[in-house]
Amino acid sequence: MLNNSDRIDSATMKAFITRSFIACGMPGTDARHAAQLMTRADLVGQDGHGVFRLPMYIRRIQAGGLNVAPKFQKLQNRKATALIDGDNGLGHLVMRHATKLAMRKARKTGIAWVGARNSNHAGPASLYAMMPLKRDMIGVYIAVGSANHLPPWGGTEMLLSTNPIAVAIPAATRPPIVLDMATTVAAYGKVKTAAQRGETMPEGWMVDRNGAPLTDPSRASEGFLLPIGGPKGYGLALVFGILAGTLNGAAFGRDVVDFNADATTITNTGHMIIALDINAFTDVDIFKAGIDRIYEEMKSSPRLPGVEEIRLPGERLQRVLSERRATGIPLPDQLRQQLDHLADELGIAPIQ
Amino acid sequence: MLNNSDRIDSATMKAFITRSFIACGMPGTDARHAAQLMTRADLVGQDGHGVFRLPMYIRRIQAGGLNVAPKFQKLQNRKATALIDGDNGLGHLVMRHATKLAMRKARKTGIAWVGARNSNHAGPASLYAMMPLKRDMIGVYIAVGSANHLPPWGGTEMLLSTNPIAVAIPAATRPPIVLDMATTVAAYGKVKTAAQRGETMPEGWMVDRNGAPLTDPSRASEGFLLPIGGPKGYGLALVFGILAGTLNGAAFGRDVVDFNADATTITNTGHMIIALDINAFTDVDIFKAGIDRIYEEMKSSPRLPGVEEIRLPGERLQRVLSERRATGIPLPDQLRQQLDHLADELGIAPIQ
Repeated sequence: MLNNSDRIDSATMKAFITRSFIACGMPGTDARHAAQLMTRADLVGQDGHGVFRLPMYIRRIQAGGLNVAPKFQKLQNRKATALIDGDNGLGHLVMRHATKLAMRKARKTGIAWVGARNSNHAGPASLYAMMPLKRDMIGVYIAVGSANHLPPWGGTEMLLSTNPIAVAIPAATRPPIVLDMATTVAAYGKVKTAAQRGETMPEGWMVDRNGAPLTDPSRASEGFLLPIGGPKGYGLALVFGILAGTLNGAAFGRDVVDFNADATTITNTGHMIIALDINAFTDVDIFKAGIDRIYEEMKSSPRLPGVEEIRLPGERLQRVLSERRATGIPLPDQLRQQLDHLADELGIAPIQ
Repeated sequence: MLNNSDRIDSATMKAFITRSFIACGMPGTDARHAAQLMTRADLVGQDGHGVFRLPMYIRRIQAGGLNVAPKFQKLQNRKATALIDGDNGLGHLVMRHATKLAMRKARKTGIAWVGARNSNHAGPASLYAMMPLKRDMIGVYIAVGSANHLPPWGGTEMLLSTNPIAVAIPAATRPPIVLDMATTVAAYGKVKTAAQRGETMPEGWMVDRNGAPLTDPSRASEGFLLPIGGPKGYGLALVFGILAGTLNGAAFGRDVVDFNADATTITNTGHMIIALDINAFTDVDIFKAGIDRIYEEMKSSPRLPGVEEIRLPGERLQRVLSERRATGIPLPDQLRQQLDHLADELGIAPIQ
């Protein structure tokens, strides 16, 4: 368990991330936007996608692999679609820009689909899918993952990433439904966590190059992740990769750069966002009341023996958000040491 | 193995379906459109969704549960979205109409999303996702399934269907990529087939009401299907159900009518289609060449021991289509007897 002293107020976290980026030459407004989104990832409990990634982003900036002052360009523009060139900027800034554009377009046309190329890792998928919620819109976000961990079904060469999807749907008085999932049984971050903790993985997460179950996470490099539902998850990863990558002229397949291992090669990461205006289909209040009813229907339905609670996608996220807004973001010792070291290196004040 | 005499030419099949519908009072043009789509389902090998369903559709028409002369109505209409009321018509006709509308809109705006309510079973998802291919568009189709077989994760009440998704993406010289999948490990049709054949199901398809594996398909009514990736597949089924059902004012959750068991209650089936104009993102030829390259990359990649071939989604569909166009559609004896009986009942010529 963490002590209270290990919890950091979100404003403190955001300020630290902001000054880290500014120290690397990022304009102040962009640094604040990036910090806001990264802190949000920690606030909603997606710890592997928040401040945890800061040292890696900074390393890439310092190595010249990420542009701190990108100029976004609209390469294609139709009434309900656009393609953005992210100019090798931080994925958070590219997708914030793309999502805002999608919402503006969707207000006029009912829906918009905006793709991005030449972007980078953007944190958790839910960040962007949830942006349209405040405007009474549904959000759908898909990305090409930042490293390949998945072969085609039956194969052994890791040509695919865990290509995630997030879908966010607003409710009236209940938490929004927020599905945020990789197309593999386990995300690669869970394997890394199991390795750090010296735990064994359940069968079904990974197999080795002979197709035999691999349960020792320290041997992860000898095998690969398994897709959900076998060929179905492979199909989803493939199709999502084409929609978020190939269609945008972004990297897919063998062209995907391992963001964790390589700090200099341009990743040309691709993502896409859909904003869908609920009002183009039905009265917003009626729709949201309908989502509340679905929530009740699922929650109150009978459970399997030993199951305490039926959860809806996004329910945990909302609980963690409320809790962390009140008590702060937990900061493990090891991560704090890394961030202190980073502050030292950048010549900025550490997290107090 | 089937004899050649068991294979029916697709034109013969289509003509039979057409006269069956006409005998029930459906206008000739609609009957031909419905027959064309149903025959197409058989041609691409989705045998459980083609002529196999004809007796059930006819039974529903005769019972007054399906409107043979629907008037489609545009309940909502924005530049890139619409909501169609299917007037309780056959799903094939409703979704044919909706998809054509989506393609017309997408040509102008880059993308369109058209939803439908008050529809019915429409056959396999791939039919509609593939319609935009000829116009160099990508298709995405989602439906609320026609019977609930899936509880929320951890639950025992079947509040969800196998809510399928299909995505179709054109290639240049290779088969189009066509993903057509239920959000459960096995579609319910596979359980029925296993029961007919007296086979045992693999663990992972179904569990009983205590969560224990259920492998005897004759006991299927004592359990329920499992979603792909556990909570992930549950999340997909939920979200797809909301997008294709709730958003359109169509049935979802407890409101879903079991189309197989009940021939009279209006199903209010919901579906949605996206048409996405590739040309709004990139040059169509460059894109299609990119899909060919992805095909080559996957196909030629190294395989697990014992795996003969890596397949792409849609490859089998294309192979079956070529084969059946040449040699006809196989018609099992039992189904032929049913169709002969139907012909007798309707006073029309049977399949020759």
